[in-house]
Amino acid sequence: MDKETQQKLPDFKWFELVSQLSEINVASGNGGPFAALVIKSGELIASSCNEVLISGDPTAHAEVSVIRKACQQLGTFQLDDCILISSCEPCPMCLGAIYWARPERVYFINTREEAASIGFDDQFIYDEIALRPDQRHIPFLKVDHAAASKAFQAWKNKTDKTPY
Amino acid sequence: MDKETQQKLPDFKWFELVSQLSEINVASGNGGPFAALVIKSGELIASSCNEVLISGDPTAHAEVSVIRKACQQLGTFQLDDCILISSCEPCPMCLGAIYWARPERVYFINTREEAASIGFDDQFIYDEIALRPDQRHIPFLKVDHAAASKAFQAWKNKTDKTPY
Repeated sequence: MDKETQQKLPDFKWFELVSQLSEINVASGNGGPFAALVIKSGELIASSCNEVLISGDPTAHAEVSVIRKACQQLGTFQLDDCILISSCEPCPMCLGAIYWARPERVYFINTREEAASIGFDDQFIYDEIALRPDQRHIPFLKVDHAAASKAFQAWKNKTDKTPY
Repeated sequence: MDKETQQKLPDFKWFELVSQLSEINVASGNGGPFAALVIKSGELIASSCNEVLISGDPTAHAEVSVIRKACQQLGTFQLDDCILISSCEPCPMCLGAIYWARPERVYFINTREEAASIGFDDQFIYDEIALRPDQRHIPFLKVDHAAASKAFQAWKNKTDKTPY
């Protein structure tokens, strides 16, 4: 981390909080040892823990959940000028969610390798992304359908759409 | 697509349905021209359209939403023996969600290149994933924190945990 980046670091209390939340989440049994925060102008907008087990929702990772909450809180689908703090390097799903929400930057305190060492092998998904879609462990197969492009054409021609 | 894969193709009516739903979604203004289905043993378990605009939730892509609904419907966080049908090649967020939900296979009728041609540049996120985390357009920065590993250790030592 260079000096300029070091100087921009958010208040250390947020790293303390995200660490504590992830520890509490293990004790509660709600999900894995993960938590995330969204901060804007030094204020906490939203916090969330991993809720996969309590919700039965495999997408309820801390980062996806905190993005959903923060957007609801701010009344927008874009996290402009926000930072996201996670207890762990985001998995590919959460990375994608972060790119769609577009916060300014992301900080994390545990790496994907550390997550793998306790049984969360995000690296497997990172490896799968690089494969040809039809050659993945879960095959992604393109099927030809004559009407496939109709919705895309309708979107292209829609004059009153909200781009996102 | 080889002959064996061709023979396993789901009923063509599902491609017709996902195509129609994505077209209806443009007209309704709820979100982008995208829809997805989860099918198990030839039965529809759940369907969803992209709901980013109506929900203000950037993670409400059709695939993420249909996975959430199907898991709720089936009372599980794993889509064993299910197939997922999408109107478009899933973005990295949805790909990640699919890997966590683990359906058997995925079918789609429009490619990421076709999505890019109407303004949905998922390829940008695919490209960003391959970069070093601290060198992405949204920088992902590792911060050292003495207590970072406490939650991971607690998870490792938890004797009554549900692995997922």
